[in-house]
Amino acid sequence: MIESLLADCEIAAAVRRVHPGPEIAECVARAAWSVIAEPGDSVAGALIEALGAVDALALAVGDSASLVPPGGATADASRALAEGRARWRPRARAQAVGDALRGAHHVRARLVIPGDEHWPRSLDDLGPSAPFALWVRGRADLLHREPRLSIVGARASSGYGEHMAAELAGDLAATGAVIVSGGAYGIDGVAHRAALGVQGATVAFLAGGVDRAYPVGHQELLRQIAEEGALVSEPPCGTAPTKWRFLARNRLIAALGQATVVVEAGWRSGSLNTAGHAATLGRPLGAVPGPVTSASSAGCHRLLREYDAQCVTSAPEVREMLGTVDGHQEFGPAESDPNRTRVLDAMSTRTRLPIDEIARRAGLSADRVRSLLGLLHLEGDVALDEAGWRRAPQTRST
Amino acid sequence: MIESLLADCEIAAAVRRVHPGPEIAECVARAAWSVIAEPGDSVAGALIEALGAVDALALAVGDSASLVPPGGATADASRALAEGRARWRPRARAQAVGDALRGAHHVRARLVIPGDEHWPRSLDDLGPSAPFALWVRGRADLLHREPRLSIVGARASSGYGEHMAAELAGDLAATGAVIVSGGAYGIDGVAHRAALGVQGATVAFLAGGVDRAYPVGHQELLRQIAEEGALVSEPPCGTAPTKWRFLARNRLIAALGQATVVVEAGWRSGSLNTAGHAATLGRPLGAVPGPVTSASSAGCHRLLREYDAQCVTSAPEVREMLGTVDGHQEFGPAESDPNRTRVLDAMSTRTRLPIDEIARRAGLSADRVRSLLGLLHLEGDVALDEAGWRRAPQTRST
Repeated sequence: MIESLLADCEIAAAVRRVHPGPEIAECVARAAWSVIAEPGDSVAGALIEALGAVDALALAVGDSASLVPPGGATADASRALAEGRARWRPRARAQAVGDALRGAHHVRARLVIPGDEHWPRSLDDLGPSAPFALWVRGRADLLHREPRLSIVGARASSGYGEHMAAELAGDLAATGAVIVSGGAYGIDGVAHRAALGVQGATVAFLAGGVDRAYPVGHQELLRQIAEEGALVSEPPCGTAPTKWRFLARNRLIAALGQATVVVEAGWRSGSLNTAGHAATLGRPLGAVPGPVTSASSAGCHRLLREYDAQCVTSAPEVREMLGTVDGHQEFGPAESDPNRTRVLDAMSTRTRLPIDEIARRAGLSADRVRSLLGLLHLEGDVALDEAGWRRAPQTRST
Repeated sequence: MIESLLADCEIAAAVRRVHPGPEIAECVARAAWSVIAEPGDSVAGALIEALGAVDALALAVGDSASLVPPGGATADASRALAEGRARWRPRARAQAVGDALRGAHHVRARLVIPGDEHWPRSLDDLGPSAPFALWVRGRADLLHREPRLSIVGARASSGYGEHMAAELAGDLAATGAVIVSGGAYGIDGVAHRAALGVQGATVAFLAGGVDRAYPVGHQELLRQIAEEGALVSEPPCGTAPTKWRFLARNRLIAALGQATVVVEAGWRSGSLNTAGHAATLGRPLGAVPGPVTSASSAGCHRLLREYDAQCVTSAPEVREMLGTVDGHQEFGPAESDPNRTRVLDAMSTRTRLPIDEIARRAGLSADRVRSLLGLLHLEGDVALDEAGWRRAPQTRST
């Protein structure tokens, strides 16, 4: 298959239409890999890492079934390769690769591969599970613009969750962050819309091909993202979304974002899967708390308890997670000197008292009280006249 | 003062009425300390620790102003002692000690001192800031019964916070925990009431004397706690609550509880002070999350963010904090073998397919699909007839 693919003039022309650079063979091979292997196939990833996409493809689906990698392979690796070949070969058809390229061109999608200007290097953190290539409609430059925040959450969101998603995504997008999500109903959709609403940047990762609007009710939103943001898929055009591909897609959302925030999630929400990937990758993970009595916050509370996620309540806190700190309010009640409180407690706004009596009531020495009264007097918290000391009316004690 | 106090027959008789044991001098001295020093006076605490309450009192308020502790003292300690004497002496009146003892007897309060059967040894964790003595109305045995949970929160509580306080306190009290709180309006009051409501045990620490119902609106609740639970103060009867004493009281709530849960708290709520003490003491600290949009949960979210408090959403989670684990649900979606999902994704409930076609769609080898189909068949998830394999109608994939 590989030799005929590389020699196919029509395929070469189709590649040029979706990828402007000179690396035709590399592009054809990576497009082919995205056709023959499912997302997250780490045997394929390791093979490509070791041999390059072109040679790996030759080894994977070439005619000589007895080919071994240069330098030999361990028994485990040989078995993994044999199993891989059994997976890949049934899909290895030049026609399918041509369809993928033509389908991409038809929706004006571009092929983005490792080494390209717009290739998001943060996805390389996925190691052998990194995607072989990405199919991108819209602004591929957003894939590596910083900062990037992934916001995900329940499809069955509540008004509260939608409010929080809109607040966070809108504020972060307005201050320059790229909002990454999955294009789903509920929290995902609200996050994308809020970013678009402030003329901000947003990226949607789909589980199927970028030519498929899924979910159907988001056809118009996804079209807008393809025009003003970026619509991105790992599987080629023509691929239907499946549960496996949704789960695999989640790792890309987690890896692209420099931090991930789960806004609202049920106890078994798919966004916990995304959160798990973010935690595994060592990306900062945040969760928005909600009422304990709301089932749609149960997943967020799990993340706070079991994944040590950060409790996120505002946009500045998200910026802090992203490392762009807004400044930080000091913790703790504004009690500078506790004895100050004790002196004020001992005083009255009406009755004037001598220092000894204030000292007795406060349980402090007269000397200490005298010096504290001096300070309090300077601050206008106490008043003195010939009858003694009293508290200024505006101060509060208990 | 001290010699006359110990020789005073009336004082001795008054002590016997509030403390049944033989340690008259020790009791008189500790009652006197609770009169002359404010709660949390660590100079007094260190002095008592070093010399015992009786000798410490003689040194503190005895006639010889030049007395030094046996073995001498550092310059810092001498200065601290001199300052202490200046604080304590204005309050050192035998009459005040007598009033405290008579006031306690009048409301049937008992004096509980270190070494007593009912002395709560968990308060000793406070070191030199531990109380000199406690004045207790009701069941002093609750002070050391286990487990003990402190539940605190905002006075200006919301319906949500009150619901959560009642849920947690009621459930924990019903399963044997002693609910410790501060008798205040809002969360405190709800926690006490919920415990009483299930015939459970509850302890209220007051900032003023146990003869003072504060807040006044809780007169009936505090009376009930004094009868069925325990009402406890560090300052003697006749003492008014002041802001300082509220803050000092909070450390006792934090130290008595084996864990502390903040149910609802504003950004500057006093219950954050209690939480800070619990954290300092190394006690497990929990916070109940709430809507980010509710000001009365802002303090809880601060604790989650800045104090690394545990996110608490249910009574079993509180029991887990107390070390009495209820059993634990496993995390993560119930995806046993991800390839199982891929095979089901590739199948249809209507169209029967051959293994090769399922393998191609799933991106798996035919061998792998064959063995997975075998398992799925055993589990009833797929069906086979002469036309091929199909998914059983009740299974769900995407």
